[in-house]
Amino acid sequence: MVLKVTVNGWRAARTLWLLLLVSLSVCISVCRATSSREEDSAMENIVTEKKAEESHRQDSADLLIFIMLLTLTILTIWLFKHRRFRFLHETGLAMIYGLIVGVILRYGIHVPRDISNVTMSCHVNASPATLLVNVSGKFYEYTLKGEISANEVNDVQDNEMLRKVTFDPEVFFNILLPPIIFHAGYSLKRRHFFRNMGSILAYAFLGTVISCFIIGLLMYGCVMLMKQMGQLGGDFFFTDCLFFGAIVSATDPVTVLAIFNELQVDVDLYALLFGESVLNDAVAVVLSSSIVAYQPQGDNSHTFEVMAMLKSFGIFLGVFSGSFALGVATGVVTALISFFTKLRDFQLLETALFFLMSWSTFLLAEACGFTGVVAVLFCGITQAHYTFNNLSPESQDRTKQLFELLNFLAENFIFSYMGLTLFTFQNHVFNPMFIIGAFIAVFLGRAANIYPLSFLLNLGRRNKIRSNFQHMMMFAGLRGAMTFALSIRDTATYARQMMFSTTLLVVFFTVWICGGGTTQMLSSFLFCHVTFVGVDSDQDNSVSVAIAEGSERRSTKQESAWLFRIWYNFDHNYLKPILTHSGPPLTATLPPCCGPLARFLTSPQAYENECQLKDDDSDLILTDGDINLTYGDITVSTDASGAHTSSGPAFAGAATSDDLDRELAYGDHELVMRGTRLVLPMDDSEPPFPDPRHGLRM
Amino acid sequence: MVLKVTVNGWRAARTLWLLLLVSLSVCISVCRATSSREEDSAMENIVTEKKAEESHRQDSADLLIFIMLLTLTILTIWLFKHRRFRFLHETGLAMIYGLIVGVILRYGIHVPRDISNVTMSCHVNASPATLLVNVSGKFYEYTLKGEISANEVNDVQDNEMLRKVTFDPEVFFNILLPPIIFHAGYSLKRRHFFRNMGSILAYAFLGTVISCFIIGLLMYGCVMLMKQMGQLGGDFFFTDCLFFGAIVSATDPVTVLAIFNELQVDVDLYALLFGESVLNDAVAVVLSSSIVAYQPQGDNSHTFEVMAMLKSFGIFLGVFSGSFALGVATGVVTALISFFTKLRDFQLLETALFFLMSWSTFLLAEACGFTGVVAVLFCGITQAHYTFNNLSPESQDRTKQLFELLNFLAENFIFSYMGLTLFTFQNHVFNPMFIIGAFIAVFLGRAANIYPLSFLLNLGRRNKIRSNFQHMMMFAGLRGAMTFALSIRDTATYARQMMFSTTLLVVFFTVWICGGGTTQMLSSFLFCHVTFVGVDSDQDNSVSVAIAEGSERRSTKQESAWLFRIWYNFDHNYLKPILTHSGPPLTATLPPCCGPLARFLTSPQAYENECQLKDDDSDLILTDGDINLTYGDITVSTDASGAHTSSGPAFAGAATSDDLDRELAYGDHELVMRGTRLVLPMDDSEPPFPDPRHGLRM
Repeated sequence: MVLKVTVNGWRAARTLWLLLLVSLSVCISVCRATSSREEDSAMENIVTEKKAEESHRQDSADLLIFIMLLTLTILTIWLFKHRRFRFLHETGLAMIYGLIVGVILRYGIHVPRDISNVTMSCHVNASPATLLVNVSGKFYEYTLKGEISANEVNDVQDNEMLRKVTFDPEVFFNILLPPIIFHAGYSLKRRHFFRNMGSILAYAFLGTVISCFIIGLLMYGCVMLMKQMGQLGGDFFFTDCLFFGAIVSATDPVTVLAIFNELQVDVDLYALLFGESVLNDAVAVVLSSSIVAYQPQGDNSHTFEVMAMLKSFGIFLGVFSGSFALGVATGVVTALISFFTKLRDFQLLETALFFLMSWSTFLLAEACGFTGVVAVLFCGITQAHYTFNNLSPESQDRTKQLFELLNFLAENFIFSYMGLTLFTFQNHVFNPMFIIGAFIAVFLGRAANIYPLSFLLNLGRRNKIRSNFQHMMMFAGLRGAMTFALSIRDTATYARQMMFSTTLLVVFFTVWICGGGTTQMLSSFLFCHVTFVGVDSDQDNSVSVAIAEGSERRSTKQESAWLFRIWYNFDHNYLKPILTHSGPPLTATLPPCCGPLARFLTSPQAYENECQLKDDDSDLILTDGDINLTYGDITVSTDASGAHTSSGPAFAGAATSDDLDRELAYGDHELVMRGTRLVLPMDDSEPPFPDPRHGLRM
Repeated sequence: MVLKVTVNGWRAARTLWLLLLVSLSVCISVCRATSSREEDSAMENIVTEKKAEESHRQDSADLLIFIMLLTLTILTIWLFKHRRFRFLHETGLAMIYGLIVGVILRYGIHVPRDISNVTMSCHVNASPATLLVNVSGKFYEYTLKGEISANEVNDVQDNEMLRKVTFDPEVFFNILLPPIIFHAGYSLKRRHFFRNMGSILAYAFLGTVISCFIIGLLMYGCVMLMKQMGQLGGDFFFTDCLFFGAIVSATDPVTVLAIFNELQVDVDLYALLFGESVLNDAVAVVLSSSIVAYQPQGDNSHTFEVMAMLKSFGIFLGVFSGSFALGVATGVVTALISFFTKLRDFQLLETALFFLMSWSTFLLAEACGFTGVVAVLFCGITQAHYTFNNLSPESQDRTKQLFELLNFLAENFIFSYMGLTLFTFQNHVFNPMFIIGAFIAVFLGRAANIYPLSFLLNLGRRNKIRSNFQHMMMFAGLRGAMTFALSIRDTATYARQMMFSTTLLVVFFTVWICGGGTTQMLSSFLFCHVTFVGVDSDQDNSVSVAIAEGSERRSTKQESAWLFRIWYNFDHNYLKPILTHSGPPLTATLPPCCGPLARFLTSPQAYENECQLKDDDSDLILTDGDINLTYGDITVSTDASGAHTSSGPAFAGAATSDDLDRELAYGDHELVMRGTRLVLPMDDSEPPFPDPRHGLRM
């Protein structure tokens, strides 16, 4: 019976799938045919409204192609998951479908030349944002889209059709990237992230800068060589090389992390890789914009100048810290709002507010001239750290699911567009020498990032980054959405076009080969050497494992970065109580002289929670007798009645370092943490992290 | 303790709220100041990139204003809800905030005149979609935005700032309206909707057409009078009047329905009002576009011509039925996909697919030249009727919550924009006579829709539409998002501008006065006369009520529209089994001669469900003894062991009419309905309907 179901369902599914594939190509050709017919009639009828209508229809049809692509991708992902076929990641799949449609659009359909473009020569010495054109008495308004290089002018007239499936590159930055980055921040495993913060920051900042300069230098050598061999068709300056280095230094975590997640490798190392690739993106964005901002004064704008470089460096620091501050600020404001209002009674309002505040971070940063994507990342982390604790359980689910969905859609859209653009982009410059050089440079740049830094970090770490894990990090350096978005942002000059084409190939190669083909290799490799260094306690609720981990953690205490340790104490004792309903009441953590202030700032709920905790405890007690745990200098003893007693310095003003470790281990459990530093090792799940059984990946 | 919490929380919330209000105005002025400074420097520096960057910053700042507005609205809604203050609906509130910001933008901030607009006179006899401008050797690309009337040309140059907060009207149709309309369709109480389908269709089609023509005629009289008095500043044809009639005939259900929901009035009447106002919108959209399409041949384009009118009528029928067919088709395709694949194992994929397919309806309809909004409505209804049954419970929640959120955000955005646009729109034409005429016409048009039709319908209905409910429907005829979107779509001519200004006032008046002030009046009025005609069984799980309702329903059998009865049998016996996992297996409903076909089409799961049902039954049995229900000619008897026996013709090929009634009552309960026509009156909740405790309103 069950067999019959599967077989029958299978046949039907495959038929359906083929049907969809065929219907997609039919849809494309029909859409195209419609548009061409429409354009023919348009030549006769020059009514503006009709033209606007047509253009709208065309846009709808173009968008429809992408929606169909995404639908196909989803169905195929399902097929793969259903069959446990893991050679190809979903993003790789989206790219393949994009490629197929790109080929169809490029070679399959011929659209008659649209001669409605008019080139006018006007005697204006400016290019205003808005243009009013007086056409035989009627005024038409035009908005500036951008500059076009002289050799593109003919292309514009030739390939109107291909240009129409080309999105404004800013769409990626303003619509598609923010949810992806926010989701990454919101789903960061905070505990492990914070414990490895030192290493992560080293990889993300130092590593990215090293990688950027190594790649830049190597590419400059390559370009010099090409110039001497006469293979260069345009200008290519050192800043261009550095820019290329910056954009290909942004690594994408998705593919390899999906494998990591399935294999349950050491969570600390997992956090290291994930944290690095998330922060990586932020650094690369700001770095590339500071490189663009490098403009020496004087006539020759491509010489080295200390002042200009310092200015670039200043821009980097300013933009990064500004974006960081803004992101954290809106996160804190959201936490405050959800803290002081009782929005949790109305989940829809709560979710809407959360969404709007997170979005406003992006807009605020962009309006202030900072980088929205970076602000959104830190906003996500702050929201997860503070606001999440104030949300109602339903809103916690809703927000997680909402951003998971947005992330999924945006990511697959970008990757399928990537595939499409390989064929539909008009100004590809494929230079074999540059491409080979780029591949070597990317490889060496990543190596120069990982190996030396790992060596240095291992000097300070007790939980060493083993060599096979370092190889893993080499391979896991996929280039993805961020690299693509950065490279497509500006394709005006010859250098940028060559960069864009090369970047596309780098992304394809890393996603397909590193992300796909090596899956099996890596997984077996990992299973032998890396796995089970620690147990992923995020998926393990048993007390014994937690205890074992607790002792293990105590031994690795020194790895908890000292700078983080200071911050952590501050965060736990002052910020958490002020911003969230979890954490101890301020009256307990502030020195007695600040009593009135503490009472003013502490939410009555914190006291309430403290009272409630005693009542709630009974819900948390395991049924099989009493639990008595000893952690260093504090003894937590609970009995079935729910009363708890404790000894040791845990109730003193400042958290001890053992306390910190325990907090790190269990701090995210909302019920347990409310209003006291006592910790019951019941359930260690980290809230904003999708359950691996439900979600697709991290 | 609790009191202290509330008071303390209150004070904090109010402070926070004031703070936000202040910060909004500061934000606005800062954004504006930034932009003006930027524009000053732009005059010196004419680099295109910088200008694009500025424009992007400006856009971000503008969008930020709306986000802040929405945030404020949310917080204030929360305050109102918290204090049980019901005089003002959230949409009304959003409008007020919009108005305030509009005043600030208009009168509070002075931006120096932007002289970067250039008016060029060129000798071209066409207005191409893309323009290439050669500015001193460099080519710039411009895209057509639209025609501007001659008197607007100066405005464009004067008030660049105000124009920048003006969105492209198509944004409303292509981005904001679809989720609202889809949500309406998806959350329609299908059972009650289908039972009152005859009346709903009569109100929606006949009623809207009547209202449109009554208003059109009255307005034409008004315009004629104005012409004679010399108060008319431009052309105003009869088609314009009809167009005005069409757009103000679209009623918005939200406000009054929120009250209805709280008061738990008769569900049938509720469904009548909701169904009418939802379909209303669809009819009004298509009607207005057919009126625009009315173009008699020959020179005088504003005379009456039979052929042109017939053509308009044909367009109405074609576009409406085309959109309907497309919407239903994509709904059915989604149902088929979710039926044949086991996507329910991967909720993220399932939700994403659902979202994409629903969106593709809109795009497909637009690409084919139909009306996307109408297609989306019927897609929503189809998705709720079929696909919803195939989704996993988690995806059912996810999709509900997703569209609830989108609906909430889009709606409040539109209403706050409405408030803003009263002051920021450049070409308002407020003509007192026209406005007074319009108010009278709108009132009379609604009356001519409701009262005569109700009288006619009451001749055929047993569950009469009482006169006080008719008054209710008069008052409930608010004009909202759809009316606004239709009127702002085209504001090129004098007539359209006057219409737009008048429409804005109509919306303000109906939302504030009808929706807000009369709440108390209506609610007391309703409580005395209308409530408790029936009990809203959607919120009542007790068996006794269900039985009582069951018998009540049998007495109103004749009201179930006969045309619906035919369709229903077909739907239940053939469509539901083919498209969903609920409903009886086809082998039971098709005649024996079609055996092989039935076996081919029936999903093995249907058989499985039938088997499972016997096992699952035990879960459905109430613990307090046996239940024995008698419905007309079928006896369902269940005992605690879960075995069920039945007698009567229920297993025959065609469903009897009693069967239909029962099905209507309980058909949406998934577990109960799987694979059999036996019905256990356990839980009558209608799936895609948000729980009133969670959501804000229906």
